[in-house]
Amino acid sequence: MELSSYFPIWDQLTPAQQAQLARSARLRTAPRGTLLHNGSEDCVGLLAVCSGALRAFIRSPEGREVTIYRLFERDICLFSASCMLKSAQFDVSAEVERDAQFWIIPADIYQSVAASSAALANYTSELMASRFSDVMWLVEQILWRSQDRRLASFLLDESALQESRTLAITHDRIAAHMGTAREVVTRLLRYFQGEGMVRLARGTIELIDEDRLRAWAEE
Amino acid sequence: MELSSYFPIWDQLTPAQQAQLARSARLRTAPRGTLLHNGSEDCVGLLAVCSGALRAFIRSPEGREVTIYRLFERDICLFSASCMLKSAQFDVSAEVERDAQFWIIPADIYQSVAASSAALANYTSELMASRFSDVMWLVEQILWRSQDRRLASFLLDESALQESRTLAITHDRIAAHMGTAREVVTRLLRYFQGEGMVRLARGTIELIDEDRLRAWAEE
Repeated sequence: MELSSYFPIWDQLTPAQQAQLARSARLRTAPRGTLLHNGSEDCVGLLAVCSGALRAFIRSPEGREVTIYRLFERDICLFSASCMLKSAQFDVSAEVERDAQFWIIPADIYQSVAASSAALANYTSELMASRFSDVMWLVEQILWRSQDRRLASFLLDESALQESRTLAITHDRIAAHMGTAREVVTRLLRYFQGEGMVRLARGTIELIDEDRLRAWAEE
Repeated sequence: MELSSYFPIWDQLTPAQQAQLARSARLRTAPRGTLLHNGSEDCVGLLAVCSGALRAFIRSPEGREVTIYRLFERDICLFSASCMLKSAQFDVSAEVERDAQFWIIPADIYQSVAASSAALANYTSELMASRFSDVMWLVEQILWRSQDRRLASFLLDESALQESRTLAITHDRIAAHMGTAREVVTRLLRYFQGEGMVRLARGTIELIDEDRLRAWAEE
């Protein structure tokens, strides 16, 4: 995917600004599990996803992880360039969740173009508002929804993401996504199995009644 | 407070842009309890706080409230103008928590100035990153910290805010701030009282051992 296609405001940049972004951007590939950005320790730049999936997450002092949002084809990860925002006082890490190809735009170049382009600066605000929406959704999930509904919802999302009804995912991994304990996930999955909604096997979870899972998730 | 003092980038605006913002801004006062902005139902504009305090909060489908962040003197509330951000898909409400005076800048005027000023547009991103940091802090509080620590932390913050060791606040109100049930708050307060950290009376909570509350909050 062309770099320009990530920026609906590309035509509002001057040829010099377009060249500055295009010249500095690097196309990279990385396998599943690669840590792309580790909280405030580094500032790799903006990541524009061509294929695969990235996962942005936070980590507790004890090392527990919670997924904040996921980024797919056509999404831009802004917080891997959070050094360009003085007011960004938080540590979000990013890793490759499904083998990915992406553009990296260095933070200093992006910042310098945005300093002279209102169009790019306003687009940055839109990107942030979009991630803000993701996080507010998560806050609402955590506050208002019980773990069982969140798990049902997670299984359905994961099935769509993996394009399969049989999920190759560990209970530990689900717990990391949901920010809960593995024991809680295992207990709920067994309950779902008892209700005939899933079938558990070594290393996999098969969804066998998606309609009921959906009803459960939306309750 | 002058409108210009809210914008560190004021000098980077043209005289025409400065005049456009200054002409459209209205100075208002509102008593405690006034609802300034009700989710996505309205778009009152940016609120620049001169004095007092505002509270931004979300509401569950059942009407339960949780404070997302608070805004004091010199702070700007951006999400009361969220209609200017297409990607802002969430409902944050705002109310006056302590009698307040504030500037209202209409969303359409602000947006039109930002469309031609990279400085203002970049400043908008900084404002958003700052609120994003508040929300990420909240997420971490909810995910990693237990209710008892959050309550200890809340009591200390509230005491600093009210500039008093005796807080005039109901258990219901604390529960609304923390997004928990009143019963949980009452139970924890009684426990704190038993430990000699607070003294409960009709309608008030007196902090009598702030050092221990602080240790508890930071544990």
